[in-house]
Amino acid sequence: MARTTAPDLYGFVVAVCGAVGVPPGDGEVIASALVDTDLRGVASHGCVRLPAYARALARGIINPAPQPTRVNGGTVSEVLDGDNGLGLVLGHRAMTRAVELAQGTGVGAVGVRNGNHTGMLAAHLTPATDARMIGYMTSNAPAIMAPWGGRDPLLSNAPFAYGIPTRGDPLVLDMAASATNRGRIRFYAQSGKELPAGWALDEEGQETVDPFAALRGVVLPMGGHKGYGLAVVNEILAGALTGALLAVDMPRDFLKEGSQVMDSWRSGLLAVAFDIATFAKIDDFLDWVEALIKQLRSSRPAPGSTAVLLPGDPERKAKSRQLAEGIQLQEATVLSLNELAEELGVTPLAAQG
Amino acid sequence: MARTTAPDLYGFVVAVCGAVGVPPGDGEVIASALVDTDLRGVASHGCVRLPAYARALARGIINPAPQPTRVNGGTVSEVLDGDNGLGLVLGHRAMTRAVELAQGTGVGAVGVRNGNHTGMLAAHLTPATDARMIGYMTSNAPAIMAPWGGRDPLLSNAPFAYGIPTRGDPLVLDMAASATNRGRIRFYAQSGKELPAGWALDEEGQETVDPFAALRGVVLPMGGHKGYGLAVVNEILAGALTGALLAVDMPRDFLKEGSQVMDSWRSGLLAVAFDIATFAKIDDFLDWVEALIKQLRSSRPAPGSTAVLLPGDPERKAKSRQLAEGIQLQEATVLSLNELAEELGVTPLAAQG
Repeated sequence: MARTTAPDLYGFVVAVCGAVGVPPGDGEVIASALVDTDLRGVASHGCVRLPAYARALARGIINPAPQPTRVNGGTVSEVLDGDNGLGLVLGHRAMTRAVELAQGTGVGAVGVRNGNHTGMLAAHLTPATDARMIGYMTSNAPAIMAPWGGRDPLLSNAPFAYGIPTRGDPLVLDMAASATNRGRIRFYAQSGKELPAGWALDEEGQETVDPFAALRGVVLPMGGHKGYGLAVVNEILAGALTGALLAVDMPRDFLKEGSQVMDSWRSGLLAVAFDIATFAKIDDFLDWVEALIKQLRSSRPAPGSTAVLLPGDPERKAKSRQLAEGIQLQEATVLSLNELAEELGVTPLAAQG
Repeated sequence: MARTTAPDLYGFVVAVCGAVGVPPGDGEVIASALVDTDLRGVASHGCVRLPAYARALARGIINPAPQPTRVNGGTVSEVLDGDNGLGLVLGHRAMTRAVELAQGTGVGAVGVRNGNHTGMLAAHLTPATDARMIGYMTSNAPAIMAPWGGRDPLLSNAPFAYGIPTRGDPLVLDMAASATNRGRIRFYAQSGKELPAGWALDEEGQETVDPFAALRGVVLPMGGHKGYGLAVVNEILAGALTGALLAVDMPRDFLKEGSQVMDSWRSGLLAVAFDIATFAKIDDFLDWVEALIKQLRSSRPAPGSTAVLLPGDPERKAKSRQLAEGIQLQEATVLSLNELAEELGVTPLAAQG
């Protein structure tokens, strides 16, 4: 593992974005999202993605300077054409706009179509939680998951996230409707470990605990028919409301072999903000949430468990540790970031091996 | 099993409601919800609940003629004090009002506090889907579920539901954040069958497949930490936004032994409506949803599965069958309904054994 700092990584991402034609403001949004993702230990969606993003942006496969335009909307709703921009930028804009629409009215909802990879959804909740609103986001993506009872990949992992203000750090739930993701299956394959039951089907549609067979097959929904149902709903919220492509129509192998170029997804996302102050006195709301948090944290762990955690606790702990001690990155990630730096004529990332 | 018809059952519920002081309009709402629930085969939440509801309404433990008042709100949001009414009425009013607020603006959100049992959430989605809107509802209830990693019942089963218009029947997802419910565990106990893994803990907090031990213990979240996270979010949406009681503060044993009286829950719910026409051309939306439905329905079943279903399919099929052939009720349910009828001086339910 190599180690860098949040400011160094942030500066590096901003420089890379600048070198591929991303306007400074958007570069800062991308850098904030990716650094926050690595800080939280969600390595699969952090700076490891930057080379693919940057090369796609440099070649215009993803538009580095999108100018989203309003294509539809009511007084508190809006659908934007994302102008083939990166989802990391569009997700932030959508939530920022949803917060504006919700201010005083109660709710705002902004959909975006014609986007690409939205990254870690939790990164886009901050505009809501900073404004003392509850933020919700879902997005669609290429199909990798089978419907319950089926064997063909027809649905994305259908991620969704909620951010809820508390008296401390916001409470963040960021989850997929799938039992797992392909990255995690790859980790099991590398470790030579069997998968837990219920994660994946093989090429023949049989459930498998062999990670290699699972990688040739499909991921299953979490909780069986329940995760499947949630995935269908999320696809419709992110895709049908916005006019995005269906999951099956998006290019699945977005990192083409060799070139690492991402095809345009024309994916969709939906951001919703609820202005708490229009529902409750903000202090009453925060007191209620604190009472729930206290009950959960002080409750008895089950045998074999050390403590009852809150949603987002592991990520919050990773973030505060890595802010203090520096961000851990795979050596291979640093190598690929610095290959990119050389390609773009950008100062390499400062990292200690 | 006994058999009745939807019109007979509807008329019976309306008469019972009238006899316990429920205004006619609300009685029709309760009857519609309970009949729809039994038609869909969700027997646990159908007319089997009517005796407890009716006795609590008759004694004023639940207010038979609630006059909900607005306690807070923005231009498209509203929180109502439910005046200790039945959730079946309050859920319908909340969604009806959310639809009014969403009309042309895009989104409407209505929270209700000081309510009681909301019944099958799917019953309250119709005002939204009839108006070509997406409806969402969540509600809270007494604590029966342990947090992930814990052993104490601190959360309700945290139900939530989505209704989505299609070119045919609305697509309905109505689910709990728990792996199962206590009624289903009772069914396993009666059948002498072992529970599937992951459903429940015993009194000592150990996972158990013994249904009797599970009934003395707690239900687990579906999908482990994922269902737990969803439950926490739903509790906050239904409870903190509205100022309802926390799940642990509600009377858990709502059917007191002998008296079958329900205590007042002072529970909360949140209804959200999304006006599709402000996001997309309604035909484009419906085309998109039809394309997804077609992909799902025509996809290959996994070995051991006969077909890929849509969320809500089993309930939709039960409804169309029971509309044609009559509604099946347990003999014991008919017996208790007719005990109630005698108590209230209402004509008994016509049912064939």
